[in-house]
Amino acid sequence: MSKQLWFSVIAYRFIAPPDNFYTFLAFLIPMLIKDVSLLESGQLLNGRDILIQGNRIIKIGRDLSDEPGEELIDGHGQLAIPGLINAHTHLAMTLLRGYADDMELMPWLQEKIWPLEARLTEEDIRWGVKLGCLELIRFGVTCYSDMYYYPDVAANATKETGLRAFISGVIFDMKPEMLGQVEPFVSRWKGDDLIMPTVGPHSVYACSKETLLKAKEIADRHDVIIHTHLSETREEVEGSNLTTGKSPVEYLDTLGMANERLAAAHCVWLSERDCYLLAKGKVNVVNCTVSNLKLASGIAPLNTLMKANVNVCLGTDGASSNNNLNLFEEMKVTAIVQKNAYHTPAAFSAEQIWHLATENAYRAFGLNLGLHAGALADLSLINLKTRPWLYPFSNMVSHLVYSMTGGVDTTIVNGKVLMRDGVIPGEAAILEEAQKRFKRLVSLAE
Amino acid sequence: MSKQLWFSVIAYRFIAPPDNFYTFLAFLIPMLIKDVSLLESGQLLNGRDILIQGNRIIKIGRDLSDEPGEELIDGHGQLAIPGLINAHTHLAMTLLRGYADDMELMPWLQEKIWPLEARLTEEDIRWGVKLGCLELIRFGVTCYSDMYYYPDVAANATKETGLRAFISGVIFDMKPEMLGQVEPFVSRWKGDDLIMPTVGPHSVYACSKETLLKAKEIADRHDVIIHTHLSETREEVEGSNLTTGKSPVEYLDTLGMANERLAAAHCVWLSERDCYLLAKGKVNVVNCTVSNLKLASGIAPLNTLMKANVNVCLGTDGASSNNNLNLFEEMKVTAIVQKNAYHTPAAFSAEQIWHLATENAYRAFGLNLGLHAGALADLSLINLKTRPWLYPFSNMVSHLVYSMTGGVDTTIVNGKVLMRDGVIPGEAAILEEAQKRFKRLVSLAE
Repeated sequence: MSKQLWFSVIAYRFIAPPDNFYTFLAFLIPMLIKDVSLLESGQLLNGRDILIQGNRIIKIGRDLSDEPGEELIDGHGQLAIPGLINAHTHLAMTLLRGYADDMELMPWLQEKIWPLEARLTEEDIRWGVKLGCLELIRFGVTCYSDMYYYPDVAANATKETGLRAFISGVIFDMKPEMLGQVEPFVSRWKGDDLIMPTVGPHSVYACSKETLLKAKEIADRHDVIIHTHLSETREEVEGSNLTTGKSPVEYLDTLGMANERLAAAHCVWLSERDCYLLAKGKVNVVNCTVSNLKLASGIAPLNTLMKANVNVCLGTDGASSNNNLNLFEEMKVTAIVQKNAYHTPAAFSAEQIWHLATENAYRAFGLNLGLHAGALADLSLINLKTRPWLYPFSNMVSHLVYSMTGGVDTTIVNGKVLMRDGVIPGEAAILEEAQKRFKRLVSLAE
Repeated sequence: MSKQLWFSVIAYRFIAPPDNFYTFLAFLIPMLIKDVSLLESGQLLNGRDILIQGNRIIKIGRDLSDEPGEELIDGHGQLAIPGLINAHTHLAMTLLRGYADDMELMPWLQEKIWPLEARLTEEDIRWGVKLGCLELIRFGVTCYSDMYYYPDVAANATKETGLRAFISGVIFDMKPEMLGQVEPFVSRWKGDDLIMPTVGPHSVYACSKETLLKAKEIADRHDVIIHTHLSETREEVEGSNLTTGKSPVEYLDTLGMANERLAAAHCVWLSERDCYLLAKGKVNVVNCTVSNLKLASGIAPLNTLMKANVNVCLGTDGASSNNNLNLFEEMKVTAIVQKNAYHTPAAFSAEQIWHLATENAYRAFGLNLGLHAGALADLSLINLKTRPWLYPFSNMVSHLVYSMTGGVDTTIVNGKVLMRDGVIPGEAAILEEAQKRFKRLVSLAE
């Protein structure tokens, strides 16, 4: 192969022009991560190689081939972990981070968030999403599930950064035009290699029965996930009981929506019957502990849900109520808050919590992920040499859940390197543009 | 000045040989941080210079002198923050991180922690402390308050890393020899520029009245802080009520110890009268939310304490129950857990929480710290360009409390650079030795 050709192939992994020719080439050129550490059944193994071809992990083992054709990544002193999934967020809201905190819910929404949201343009969404993608890449989150405005813009912006995402436009009755946009959006993106369209009815309190059933119909027809907010606050549950005579979970169940197609965010205020229905229907529950605490919404009965065998995964919610998108932090806060809520440090093990952010999320979204041959090549590398908080090497799963803080160093999604040794190409321009868009938005709102 | 001399002066700031000659030279050579961003009354100011001479900040302003003699640090794109204080930890226990988690308290102590602690040698303490110091330096914690075994070893190890610390040996009746070692330790270290000795009676349940009064007498005689655990668990309070007829706070009050000399860690289970006594006596309370949650000890009535004007600061506790030493994480978890506990997102502002980790801690420990002329030069720099979670620049105090995760980039203590752009000289050797010591300990315990 000529020098130019090699250059193109390597450049592809960083720059990723949307070009089938390069994509085809990248499938030919394997990537080899040499001499990395990884976890197998909770045990730390050193000196492993990970061979990636195209968008898949081909093989993991010792002393795998190191041929001249391969793109090499030196994994020495680094820990490889499989991609994390942030299963509930509103990524474009990253642009609103820190704009309003520490306020009661209604003044917060009415005086701050809604006026700003009313002014959001497609360009704001684009740069808000890109800002959020930078953050996810740095936190080792290789896939996220979103619900917000302008889903096509979010999908395109995400695809440009190289992340994997499940994206829904938000549907509610206040903006009836949103419902009509869902099916075309789903049709446009169904079959994409990185973007999986979903259907996003906001909640039982923001959508009429007709809207919910229409959303269900579209999701069933296209075999895609329904992403919604469910039983987030006590007021929501009380309201549902008053207007329908049922809890929000019971209500969705009577509509035939409490099933494995549903990814239900929050699920804080649940009766025992609700837990039973979520388990029976195999609903995927997305716990958002940090956001629930910051908004004083309460603490989900996670131990009860898990004892009922509900598939629980984790989400950060949007940066307006978290305020970051860090799944490591979410894991730790979830674990310790649940221990305290159930009055025993033995409630939840680090292994269980680690599973919420990985295996459970992979199951919820039907993705073949993980560090094993055949899986999609979504993973990240953590440089241990600059992270004393991961020493000593006593129990690395415990460290990932209870001690890891901040970001990772290298992130690979779908076989492509999005960040290498802390460098994301094009990051400075995104930060600058996001800052400009935020200033413009605030100046309009004042 | 000759080239060699310059080299020595610059090398001093990194290598820090314990040598009066270099110390003297460093006092002569100013350090100038150019074009940095910082917070003033919550507002982000850009383009500021910070001039440091010896161990003090001399001046902060625009376009300060940039003379050939100065050591220059380029602060462009970085945020300077004053040093954080971790007001309650057991630093040597960093060596035990991840060794035992997710267990009930008594099996955890009896089967895991105590057998290992019984085998701890001075060398284990030394490397545990050094491992912890690496972590503190990386988290922008410039000063910590410790209670553990072999305080002389901890003090020497800390001094070698260049951090500031308040250190006490632990006193309890199970090991009566500890009490006799306190006064000589205090005498040895009183007057040191970095190490402030304190007196550390473990708790009212582990120390007899005589021991507590003796500890008080030593602390009064030498005018040093008393560092203790107070009302951490419900069992402790119930036990105190049964044996003394008083709550732990009331009991310390009757001994004349509930005063401004006392730094009381935890204070989770407090009656209204306890809160009143802590306020009246001007006791400094060290809240340790993360550790309290992980051990399922409960949630401190922080809002009530602060409304009573108690001076509250923050600590991580040891790495066996946290499991890291990250004060940013402590700030965020404290804020959101308290909001939820008091049922309103308006409980606690980011500004209030930021004060706990800075101003309140400075007051508790009587230190002139902060980003102002005359203060001790304890500060850190955060590179904003690689931290998308600190964008947009809407409210930087909110970002520091709710969004900051992981470490800082440059840490300066007492006018000396301990980490620059993420590099701590000698870190690799400390990590390696800590790992070795941990393996040896565990092999002995098995």
